[in-house]
Amino acid sequence: MPGESDIAFMTQALRLAENGRYTAHPNPVVGCVIVSDGKVVGEGWHQSTGAAHAEINALNSAGDKARGATVFVTLEPCSHHGKTPPCCEALIDAGIAEVVIGMQDPNPDVDGKGLKVLKAAGIPVRTGVLDEQVRLQLAGFISRVTAGRPFVTLKMACSIDGRIAMASGESQWITGPEARADVQRLRARSGAILSGIGTVLADDPSFNVRDPDIDTLGRQPLRAVLDAQLRMPLSAEMLGLPGQTVVYCIDDNKQQALTDEGAEIVKVGGEAGQVNAQAVLEDLARREINNVLVEAGPVLAGHLLTNNLVDELVIYQAPHIMGSETMGMFETPAWTALSHRRLLEITDTRPVGPDTRITARFAG
Amino acid sequence: MPGESDIAFMTQALRLAENGRYTAHPNPVVGCVIVSDGKVVGEGWHQSTGAAHAEINALNSAGDKARGATVFVTLEPCSHHGKTPPCCEALIDAGIAEVVIGMQDPNPDVDGKGLKVLKAAGIPVRTGVLDEQVRLQLAGFISRVTAGRPFVTLKMACSIDGRIAMASGESQWITGPEARADVQRLRARSGAILSGIGTVLADDPSFNVRDPDIDTLGRQPLRAVLDAQLRMPLSAEMLGLPGQTVVYCIDDNKQQALTDEGAEIVKVGGEAGQVNAQAVLEDLARREINNVLVEAGPVLAGHLLTNNLVDELVIYQAPHIMGSETMGMFETPAWTALSHRRLLEITDTRPVGPDTRITARFAG
Repeated sequence: MPGESDIAFMTQALRLAENGRYTAHPNPVVGCVIVSDGKVVGEGWHQSTGAAHAEINALNSAGDKARGATVFVTLEPCSHHGKTPPCCEALIDAGIAEVVIGMQDPNPDVDGKGLKVLKAAGIPVRTGVLDEQVRLQLAGFISRVTAGRPFVTLKMACSIDGRIAMASGESQWITGPEARADVQRLRARSGAILSGIGTVLADDPSFNVRDPDIDTLGRQPLRAVLDAQLRMPLSAEMLGLPGQTVVYCIDDNKQQALTDEGAEIVKVGGEAGQVNAQAVLEDLARREINNVLVEAGPVLAGHLLTNNLVDELVIYQAPHIMGSETMGMFETPAWTALSHRRLLEITDTRPVGPDTRITARFAG
Repeated sequence: MPGESDIAFMTQALRLAENGRYTAHPNPVVGCVIVSDGKVVGEGWHQSTGAAHAEINALNSAGDKARGATVFVTLEPCSHHGKTPPCCEALIDAGIAEVVIGMQDPNPDVDGKGLKVLKAAGIPVRTGVLDEQVRLQLAGFISRVTAGRPFVTLKMACSIDGRIAMASGESQWITGPEARADVQRLRARSGAILSGIGTVLADDPSFNVRDPDIDTLGRQPLRAVLDAQLRMPLSAEMLGLPGQTVVYCIDDNKQQALTDEGAEIVKVGGEAGQVNAQAVLEDLARREINNVLVEAGPVLAGHLLTNNLVDELVIYQAPHIMGSETMGMFETPAWTALSHRRLLEITDTRPVGPDTRITARFAG
């Protein structure tokens, strides 16, 4: 059992890690705290790929005080020469007396190697301190390296009676400006935004991070559009914006014009005229996307749910009743009995301006 | 501006009033605190019609200490001889030095008469202390005596995507036992439960208070069923239960058999085969019903919403996704544009077991 101070220091490391939330992609966010005589003498976090790891930043901030100190780091330190030198070596060289790790590296090729190097150097290592919290913090990275697909967050905006638009399609501004600002943060956390051609044709969305208060170091999430027959108009707003647009199709006959507009066209399998979403997610994982945010209509949302490809739901519920002459949230033609329904576990409910944001994962 | 201690004592009176929530019908709930030298020396609340008023109970509990004391009472004391002697006289006789009132009696025939009697006896009276809170507490009573119809609470149980049943009608147990227990409390607060014949035919509901922990002094809410063509089966569960069943119809040809089963049949106007809901509510007000709880399907719920006959919504939202092959919450065929939607103000959101209870009123 970790002690109270272990929990306090690892909590601080978890919090530090969050500083890299908008910038660390495709790397995991990592935080590190160095403690000497019960006092924090160094702090570090990982900002972006190619930049120093959290441990190195913490060692630099601690200076000589690192000698004989205890290191708390959310993720197992690396032992390999990657874009930066291995952290284990640096910890050993700095004379660290003990290392406390949140969770071991989930990457099956790495898992445990850092521990071995530290132990071989005679440094005691404890693991599993707040590992559940680290697991939640790194859900996207873990999903990519262990399941070969990103962590998928499905965002929907709806009325309190679960409607997203009038039957006519009329839908603008169901939720308030605070909810839309919150979506900017969801986008900034995500490596890619996934949508369907129906949404592109109806709303011509930008899917970009444009809140000046959010610093992504210039990065924009990749825009992934499921577009079986390549109906994407050449005038689509997103094609002219900074960042990458990838269009997934079944039939790529018309790809040249879109390629000329800067989009990348990827031909994948499909069924009944629908692009294979699993294949798209696997392709995104190969592109080192940890977190995908789905901003789509009821057809793609229902398709992803039906195929169990959603890990988390974020619902912005506006305090409106829209009634029956409207579109529902999820098209799920195969769910004909109550036993087909999906059970959720609500992890967070909070007001966002006049709206309510509900975050949920799937139960059982 | 009321002072801090005014607010504290009136808050205590408001809380005392709640003791009568399940039993005071058709009377308003009222609470009273008697304060001498800054200390509470007497407390009272009104339990049920015919029993002593809150002020009398408080005077009895204070005894001699009432002389020279200040009375805090949520509602203007009565000055007329009704089922009990007038409270104003008792307050004067007890030598009360000052009376602080939450709100004046909303009944236009009474409003201000108690104040006049007290002032004429030389007792200073202050009004409007926490009157907004009293107004919320007495919403049903106020609606009945000023608008001639009860306060209408529409209760719905749905999934997180706003669905109440499968398209096939399959719907049992969408919400959990805690939500169903909470509905027992909603029923106990209500003078009547309003439903439609569709719900009776589909679910054969009891609409009764059966939680042994809720003491209504034996009272059951009146069961009001909108049943234009008198399709209510003679075997309907509710006909055999304690309490009154009133069936509102347009065509009362078949009334005799139902009357034999103990139901009261009331013929009211209607349009397009639907019973005039406004006329039903007015009839319930004449029966001294302050609060109506609607437990109905999407047709009646939508009809009431469309006709602005709902004052409050209570939604039990289960953490399930039910999808598109389902029934929505509200049938509102006339709401074809986004501008027809109803805007709500959420007044409370809380977990009730695994479900979420959302309470809302209509905005603007």
